Amino acid sequence: MSADLHPAPLTLDGSCVLHQMFRFDWPAWRALEAGDRQRMVAEAQAFLGPLEAGAAEGHPNQSAVFAQLGHKGDLLFVHFRDSMEELARLERDLAKLELSDYLEPSESYVSVVELGLYESSAKTYAQLAMEGIEPHTEVWNQRVAEVVARQAEAMGVRLFPRIPEGKYLCFYPMDRRRGEEVNWYTQSMAERQRMMHDHGMIGRRYADSVRQIISGSIGFDDWEWGVDLFADDPKVFKKLIYEMRFDEASALYAEFGPFYISVRLPSQELGQWLALEGGTR
Amino acid sequence: MSADLHPAPLTLDGSCVLHQMFRFDWPAWRALEAGDRQRMVAEAQAFLGPLEAGAAEGHPNQSAVFAQLGHKGDLLFVHFRDSMEELARLERDLAKLELSDYLEPSESYVSVVELGLYESSAKTYAQLAMEGIEPHTEVWNQRVAEVVARQAEAMGVRLFPRIPEGKYLCFYPMDRRRGEEVNWYTQSMAERQRMMHDHGMIGRRYADSVRQIISGSIGFDDWEWGVDLFADDPKVFKKLIYEMRFDEASALYAEFGPFYISVRLPSQELGQWLALEGGTR
Amino acid sequence: MSADLHPAPLTLDGSCVLHQMFRFDWPAWRALEAGDRQRMVAEAQAFLGPLEAGAAEGHPNQSAVFAQLGHKGDLLFVHFRDSMEELARLERDLAKLELSDYLEPSESYVSVVELGLYESSAKTYAQLAMEGIEPHTEVWNQRVAEVVARQAEAMGVRLFPRIPEGKYLCFYPMDRRRGEEVNWYTQSMAERQRMMHDHGMIGRRYADSVRQIISGSIGFDDWEWGVDLFADDPKVFKKLIYEMRFDEASALYAEFGPFYISVRLPSQELGQWLALEGGTR
Amino acid sequence: MSADLHPAPLTLDGSCVLHQMFRFDWPAWRALEAGDRQRMVAEAQAFLGPLEAGAAEGHPNQSAVFAQLGHKGDLLFVHFRDSMEELARLERDLAKLELSDYLEPSESYVSVVELGLYESSAKTYAQLAMEGIEPHTEVWNQRVAEVVARQAEAMGVRLFPRIPEGKYLCFYPMDRRRGEEVNWYTQSMAERQRMMHDHGMIGRRYADSVRQIISGSIGFDDWEWGVDLFADDPKVFKKLIYEMRFDEASALYAEFGPFYISVRLPSQELGQWLALEGGTR
Amino acid sequence: MSADLHPAPLTLDGSCVLHQMFRFDWPAWRALEAGDRQRMVAEAQAFLGPLEAGAAEGHPNQSAVFAQLGHKGDLLFVHFRDSMEELARLERDLAKLELSDYLEPSESYVSVVELGLYESSAKTYAQLAMEGIEPHTEVWNQRVAEVVARQAEAMGVRLFPRIPEGKYLCFYPMDRRRGEEVNWYTQSMAERQRMMHDHGMIGRRYADSVRQIISGSIGFDDWEWGVDLFADDPKVFKKLIYEMRFDEASALYAEFGPFYISVRLPSQELGQWLALEGGTR
Repeated sequence: MSADLHPAPLTLDGSCVLHQMFRFDWPAWRALEAGDRQRMVAEAQAFLGPLEAGAAEGHPNQSAVFAQLGHKGDLLFVHFRDSMEELARLERDLAKLELSDYLEPSESYVSVVELGLYESSAKTYAQLAMEGIEPHTEVWNQRVAEVVARQAEAMGVRLFPRIPEGKYLCFYPMDRRRGEEVNWYTQSMAERQRMMHDHGMIGRRYADSVRQIISGSIGFDDWEWGVDLFADDPKVFKKLIYEMRFDEASALYAEFGPFYISVRLPSQELGQWLALEGGTR
Repeated sequence: MSADLHPAPLTLDGSCVLHQMFRFDWPAWRALEAGDRQRMVAEAQAFLGPLEAGAAEGHPNQSAVFAQLGHKGDLLFVHFRDSMEELARLERDLAKLELSDYLEPSESYVSVVELGLYESSAKTYAQLAMEGIEPHTEVWNQRVAEVVARQAEAMGVRLFPRIPEGKYLCFYPMDRRRGEEVNWYTQSMAERQRMMHDHGMIGRRYADSVRQIISGSIGFDDWEWGVDLFADDPKVFKKLIYEMRFDEASALYAEFGPFYISVRLPSQELGQWLALEGGTR
Repeated sequence: MSADLHPAPLTLDGSCVLHQMFRFDWPAWRALEAGDRQRMVAEAQAFLGPLEAGAAEGHPNQSAVFAQLGHKGDLLFVHFRDSMEELARLERDLAKLELSDYLEPSESYVSVVELGLYESSAKTYAQLAMEGIEPHTEVWNQRVAEVVARQAEAMGVRLFPRIPEGKYLCFYPMDRRRGEEVNWYTQSMAERQRMMHDHGMIGRRYADSVRQIISGSIGFDDWEWGVDLFADDPKVFKKLIYEMRFDEASALYAEFGPFYISVRLPSQELGQWLALEGGTR
Repeated sequence: MSADLHPAPLTLDGSCVLHQMFRFDWPAWRALEAGDRQRMVAEAQAFLGPLEAGAAEGHPNQSAVFAQLGHKGDLLFVHFRDSMEELARLERDLAKLELSDYLEPSESYVSVVELGLYESSAKTYAQLAMEGIEPHTEVWNQRVAEVVARQAEAMGVRLFPRIPEGKYLCFYPMDRRRGEEVNWYTQSMAERQRMMHDHGMIGRRYADSVRQIISGSIGFDDWEWGVDLFADDPKVFKKLIYEMRFDEASALYAEFGPFYISVRLPSQELGQWLALEGGTR
Repeated sequence: MSADLHPAPLTLDGSCVLHQMFRFDWPAWRALEAGDRQRMVAEAQAFLGPLEAGAAEGHPNQSAVFAQLGHKGDLLFVHFRDSMEELARLERDLAKLELSDYLEPSESYVSVVELGLYESSAKTYAQLAMEGIEPHTEVWNQRVAEVVARQAEAMGVRLFPRIPEGKYLCFYPMDRRRGEEVNWYTQSMAERQRMMHDHGMIGRRYADSVRQIISGSIGFDDWEWGVDLFADDPKVFKKLIYEMRFDEASALYAEFGPFYISVRLPSQELGQWLALEGGTR
């Protein structure tokens, strides 16, 4: 195994993120009186509306609602917050809504917005080595911390982003492969940097039509990263991911989890979405 | 890893497709009054009838109903629509039917009708390279877009197809293998084109007895493609797939998901299918 | 990859087969009045009795009932029929029985009785090649069809079999391995024929104590084949399968699904099996 | 692949074994009147007591009850019986107890006590070969049957054992690996015999503190063997299995299923275990 | 395969550990009267309070409560006890609380606090070999037992630890890989010792911000080890585990199970956490 120093790239960490997928209990919902349904929707809207708007200043700390396709779930909530504790409280508050009697948790994902600093890491580690500074000494740690702090300052908006506007959301978790022969974690930092650069080039060609947020989930959930893609035309998700599947970083080293496709459903449209038309009930 | 340019073939995307599998709650159904059952079937038929017929002009945007074999589900619905949003709405509308109290979602699949353009891709990429046009430049993108537009025009009927007539439906999702040693996504475009051509030759020999629709699901669901086969004799499914399992594209590079076998059940026969004969209840 | 022609062996297809596994809802059953229980058992027996007997002439088209061991299920039904549609109807009719309120589907398997014609295939393909007849031409297809028809005629009883008499049933599905290095589907036809022959030799030594029915499920269910073994002494299942596990076809190329072991429970004994002895209820 | 004759070792088969794991429905249990709870416990104790004692003469055919740790289950029953049919009846009889309304089957395992005869097999096969007796001829079969019968006679107590006394039970199923490169079933008999001998040596060093029963489940359940370990100090399970994990038979060739750890709960203590102390209900 | 003697390192075993994950049944909880909810919380607090405090002298034998993020569970309990039997009793006692009607077990993990003695093992084995003492003889066993006893004495506080104070808990189970090519259990003791030493060095750099407890679960649960990390800043979990993922012991030999992230919820805050604010109910 290659013994290159500092193989883990530096990362910047931003908003804590919670994805929640729910099945909606239509049979129980239909059994309710219309007035009860309206009250519950109104309570949920009063709760969700301000979360969708988010903070006007500082970190947006927004939430958003989507309608899922298929049996994996009916409603998908995405929450960005400043801490895991806030996410835990939010999850509990949401569970206390009357409407939550009709929301059965089916899946979820916990992660933190992450920007990988492959280029800065390489430069910084090389510079420090040239200066003869030993890794993990106090000086070394301080110099690295300065780089991270400077980058975090510069990247603030991308670390604590507003939720992009696209009509459709494609979310999926993924790993870098640790196979017996093909293993991302034994590749040299230079190789990984090169592959991540090429990978990023593809994404950039789609920058006009797809907004992407990467979050890290090592230590938080069962895959290593979560990927959120936002677009007005969902067919672009397929085109982008299919094209990426042939780049070296993906073809050899990506393992994909389940894919969740959903359509934005602002909470003010929730009443209409859940309304039962006239008829026999 | 081979560095061949543009390894992803161009594809044409057509109808958005949703497969829904449901278990039918017979015990609860039996507990109903006959009149309630009849009312619910009538409501479902009024809803499904026009969807089965589809649009007379333009894209058909049809739905179809099938009775499944085995415990994976009792009823299977297939929907072709022009957008994912329409599928989401349809899914919600179906959930609002009274009959849906007795339909428990067990599985589903989200995809988009896809035609792979291996031959056109190869020709176009070669031609553009010969003319010295750099990939992903404005000119290059425009020339590729023209090819795609021309082909989409020519293939319109296959991209937005009517649902074939066969009595039986065999549906299954699949991947192209990305193993540590055997990896479709590191094969050259010429190799993949050759294997897909041979693969297609087998299908063509069954053209009289089996109608096939391929849909892509990268970004939409957990496998890369969905395959729908329609036939009057289900044993032909086994013969065809078994024969294909020995061709190079499948023997080395195919990973298969679950298989769903079902018999067509037009909605006008739904009442009869669900009727409880005289007797003690 | 070896390019040998026609690698798929010819097969003969017979009865369509449905295995159904159910958990029995004892708590709900106990909550019934004795009279209700008796009425439901009687209805089920009236339904199942003729199915167990099957047709006196032509294809037997039988069903059989077994009591399962362990938590995978309590009752296992096996049905042989002439078509998938008949199986679908039968499944629905069974679901309409009052007793079915207490039967929760846990597993199932859909397949078609299959006889592999490795020897005939090899001979026929060789003969046609010698005569200079091109594969998949009209003549070639006709000649192959004649071979299949002749064999099907000769094998009729094995293709549409009566359900063997043994007291115990062992059912399991299996695949032929398509690993990255060890791949059944890239072996030459001659090699496969040799291995299947050796494999069959072991089975033949157990012909006195074990009756075996192989069914193919490519296109119908999640594994490629289903295996039903019938015997009066269940320990022979272990002996046979353990011995086979060392032959080349199994040691290298078999992948096994779940195993289901059950004891025959003729429907006329169903009342006794489900009876609640006197006591407190 | 090596072509050594008779690669399957002879085995001796003894008691049929059923492991049953249940979750206990505490909420429903709490909702009962104290008198109902007492009646149900008494009925269960009257049923289980004699099964725990087993037969005084001949095969013991015992059952035992354990309290499980963790969410996999709350109560674990182990039954040894002379036939699979007896196990099926026992399972049904247990399901008929009133207490079973509160026992939800979560897992189970079906197997047969097995003693592998690697040494006898090697000797016998060699001897018969030396005498020029063809395998699987009538004479050969008879000679092998004599060996098996003699060994079964000698091993009677180990084939139909009483359930050992240890306070803790560790149960797990396992396979011998059939990987693409590392495959137990393609090793020569001599190699397997050597590895099993070394493997057994470790177990023998723990003979004072751990009692072990191996059962075979090929043809009966989803793994090839079940392992029951009984001890008064559960930490010895970890020590023993960890040490074994480094021997060749395990390090290279073992695949382990789920592990179930439980504490003995004689049925006469069941009432106390399930009692709801005074307090608010 | 290398035949180095005594490949299993000596380990010290301490507290028995049970992790319990529960989903909270909010709909049923909401259906209760406020007074019932208060009574149940009070009963749970009276039960949990002393367990959280633990014993003032000797082994602490503590429990702790956490609120989980995501759908895997809502409440997570960790219990350290002197024996598995005490854990079983505790689990049952907890199940008897009224509040447990609203706690649905979703996951759990059973293990024993473990300290691996790679360095002592190597030294001791070498010393004994030098003295010509045969492994597993009475003398050898006694000498090894002395080493273990001495180390256990010295490590007492780490073997029976108090539950660390950090606000967040990250728990995950893991295995050492036994792949067909990359296999921890066939590496020499010296190699394993070297890799574990390097692995430990990373952890030490995080000693100020993360407290770690390793427990062994061979024989008790489905993975080989459980890892509990406690910290006030959960982002440090990601940083630490990501950095470790590149060290040799993890990059090549680690297999990770599910990750559980949670926030400490002392039982005295349980009432507030579960309270339903004024409003319509």
